[in-house]
Amino acid sequence: MQHKLYTMAKPLILVTNDDGITAPGLRALIRFMMELGEVVVVAPDSPQSGMGHAITIDNTLYIKKIKVDLENGADEEYSCSGTPADCVKLGLQELLGRKPDLCVSGINHGSNSSINVIYSGTMSAAIEAGIEGIPAIGFSLCDYSWNANFETSKEAVQKIVREALKNGIPNGVVLNVNIPKTDNKAPKGIKICRQARANWKEKFDKRTNPSGKEYYWLTGEFELLDKGEDTDEYALSQNYVSVVPTQFDLTAHHAIQRINNWNLND
Amino acid sequence: MQHKLYTMAKPLILVTNDDGITAPGLRALIRFMMELGEVVVVAPDSPQSGMGHAITIDNTLYIKKIKVDLENGADEEYSCSGTPADCVKLGLQELLGRKPDLCVSGINHGSNSSINVIYSGTMSAAIEAGIEGIPAIGFSLCDYSWNANFETSKEAVQKIVREALKNGIPNGVVLNVNIPKTDNKAPKGIKICRQARANWKEKFDKRTNPSGKEYYWLTGEFELLDKGEDTDEYALSQNYVSVVPTQFDLTAHHAIQRINNWNLND
Repeated sequence: MQHKLYTMAKPLILVTNDDGITAPGLRALIRFMMELGEVVVVAPDSPQSGMGHAITIDNTLYIKKIKVDLENGADEEYSCSGTPADCVKLGLQELLGRKPDLCVSGINHGSNSSINVIYSGTMSAAIEAGIEGIPAIGFSLCDYSWNANFETSKEAVQKIVREALKNGIPNGVVLNVNIPKTDNKAPKGIKICRQARANWKEKFDKRTNPSGKEYYWLTGEFELLDKGEDTDEYALSQNYVSVVPTQFDLTAHHAIQRINNWNLND
Repeated sequence: MQHKLYTMAKPLILVTNDDGITAPGLRALIRFMMELGEVVVVAPDSPQSGMGHAITIDNTLYIKKIKVDLENGADEEYSCSGTPADCVKLGLQELLGRKPDLCVSGINHGSNSSINVIYSGTMSAAIEAGIEGIPAIGFSLCDYSWNANFETSKEAVQKIVREALKNGIPNGVVLNVNIPKTDNKAPKGIKICRQARANWKEKFDKRTNPSGKEYYWLTGEFELLDKGEDTDEYALSQNYVSVVPTQFDLTAHHAIQRINNWNLND
């Protein structure tokens, strides 16, 4: 009875990501969350980077209950054949017995700051949870290496999660948290920021396959177009963790009046 | 010489979609645009609905120059193995000789109003163009049928495109245009709107495959959570075309101060 009461009092945390259920970043996030609540994982069975907010409409979805790490695993873990957004939908609808108190996604291997939020599977999972009324946070470490050091992120991740559980997150808002690559030091602190203006200068690497057919690889260079000191990119450049409150109401309210002046209804 | 001058004076319009290069909605949009400018098509070689803002990072991309419709086709057409966002990136970087004056995406077979914008491949193509500084518009008809009547959309689509070419679209803004299903009548008019609050109530249809393994189909019901009369959903319900100015700066500026009160840097 006491065990049950204890369990009920702990917050229920849904953990997912886009690098797949075996990714070290996910395993680190599970360890950090196990100290704060009851943890259920629903994560893709294979990497889903760059999937944006894709969902699986024309294909079947499979779920498998698994145990990836017997010692440091979550209370329950499921791998799923779908996208990060599918994982959240399945988790909320089919796998969790009750509404979770929080959904966390990540820790992504690589930055999702600035315009990268648009392409991010990590953030799409968090946004999906936000749409369904669950407080949600996406975490990314600005280090693309599979063997990145996630331990230096622990303090900031747990601080942000504790405050989110305590204060709640405003309705319609999801947090996009990026952690600077600081090698073995902890980040300097945490800053609330706006999304920096930026884009990717694409370069397509054109090659010829063994059958003589031409194909392309998408590559590119990140181009920062914003000199503001209140942006996520600036905070990260100063070794601060950036937190951008991110919304899924995409209306550009400031543009409504201007477009109302167009000659559309004569 | 005269032909060349004429060509140079016409606006260059990049056309794409997410239903694939043979979709009737795309073919209609091409016909409507051919009356307004020089048209180059770069569209997926297969349907990409629900792809959100996915991009192809870990796979090769193929492009094929084709002619789908000898009589009513565009000036140039390319099919691409990638997502809608890939098509725009490839079009701008590799296939168009100069910067287009406009990018239009659609006409989608089915609604992309309200929260559907988040999952929309149609809108992700337009947003990708917007990120790259190209004025861009996504068009969707609220009729999922492959044989939908697109002709009743013509007047509104051309009006909006003409005004966009004349006035420009504010920086950082992309238009999300949805057209009501009005059978053989024209829509009542065009309204500039905000994105309605809504979500999908998921229902997973659980089945067993011939080998005895369980799988799921994602289905769901659209749930409107917004009674406002300034929303896209309301305009569509009244048989008006809805135009939502949509932004890719996702910062929830109103939430920054509130989250600044959290205890994150003690």
